[in-house]
Amino acid sequence: MRIGELSRRAGVSVPTIKYYVREGLLPAGRLTSPNQASYEELHVRRLRLIRALLDVGGLSVAGVREVIAAVDDPERSVHKMLGTAADRVVPRYEHPGDEPEDSLVAARAAVADLLARRGWHAYPEAPAAEALAVALAALDDVGHGGFAEVLDDYADAAERVARTDLDYVARNVDREELVESVVVGTVLGDAMFAALRRLAHIDASDRLFGTER
Amino acid sequence: MRIGELSRRAGVSVPTIKYYVREGLLPAGRLTSPNQASYEELHVRRLRLIRALLDVGGLSVAGVREVIAAVDDPERSVHKMLGTAADRVVPRYEHPGDEPEDSLVAARAAVADLLARRGWHAYPEAPAAEALAVALAALDDVGHGGFAEVLDDYADAAERVARTDLDYVARNVDREELVESVVVGTVLGDAMFAALRRLAHIDASDRLFGTER
Repeated sequence: MRIGELSRRAGVSVPTIKYYVREGLLPAGRLTSPNQASYEELHVRRLRLIRALLDVGGLSVAGVREVIAAVDDPERSVHKMLGTAADRVVPRYEHPGDEPEDSLVAARAAVADLLARRGWHAYPEAPAAEALAVALAALDDVGHGGFAEVLDDYADAAERVARTDLDYVARNVDREELVESVVVGTVLGDAMFAALRRLAHIDASDRLFGTER
Repeated sequence: MRIGELSRRAGVSVPTIKYYVREGLLPAGRLTSPNQASYEELHVRRLRLIRALLDVGGLSVAGVREVIAAVDDPERSVHKMLGTAADRVVPRYEHPGDEPEDSLVAARAAVADLLARRGWHAYPEAPAAEALAVALAALDDVGHGGFAEVLDDYADAAERVARTDLDYVARNVDREELVESVVVGTVLGDAMFAALRRLAHIDASDRLFGTER
């Protein structure tokens, strides 16, 4: 197909497509004449992935380049490739004020304990493990360290949700589509779960406190 | 206690305490001489709540004022008071690009269906319901409308987490402390759950894809 059709199919403007080619994110088309190139389905899929990483995942162009390199590296296992993408969409609770050093050290140990206790095949150096430690430290710093008792109930729920998520991801075979579904499912899944949790709070609060007038 | 002790106990500077009094967020101390006031435990609790709303909840001073008004209104039931605070800490997925009108209309209907199907005592006009609709519409717009099939699994997990959350909140009796625990637990609970979900993804991905080399 010509670049105009690629643009329509992928919903990405022609100048933007050319920019992605210059940035090395998208392979150039096959030249059919000195100033005309032909594009394939692989370009449509790649553009969808690039848009998902930029728009939904919020990655920088440099971040997109690293993920694309992982997708294009046949030596990189699917597990490692998905990890490369997933590590870039870890949201981190930004602690207001100074860095809470003492509580962070204790929180990191609590996270390592949790991983060992549950037998999760995840490494304590993963950005998600650090993000969890930062959230636990923040709880402690605002005097709600007791809330960390919910950790195992949360982990049960997270395990269940993650299994559902991976079922969705594993429907894909193509490496680009696997990564795309991980990024979209992770980011929008967070948004969905947070909203559902609040709706369930309203329900639980109504049942607990709603009868008083 | 004098203002200096209040400042130390609450970890809030004296000029900031005076600012909160001027803004009507904190009741003035009882005057013991023309230029000296005395403060009580209620001031310590109130300052903790104000800091939680500002620092953890990310509310504006105007938002804090509304929540405080709900806390101070004896006619407002606990359920309504908690709702006033919780509605202000609903994160919303910001859709990149234009407003997705058609998909949003369909998504709102899907959210209303979900609430009815689960019998949740939550109203479709709640900010959390709209946030869920926005996330569902965004999935549809990026060609992952199929991911919405996970909605009931997510809702099961959210119900379980919400029950755990409310158990924590209900340990408090004092209205200020109830609201504070809701805001802290909601915001930091989101951060914890998102991090745990990613760690569970790493585990699930390793089990599913990790054997290939």
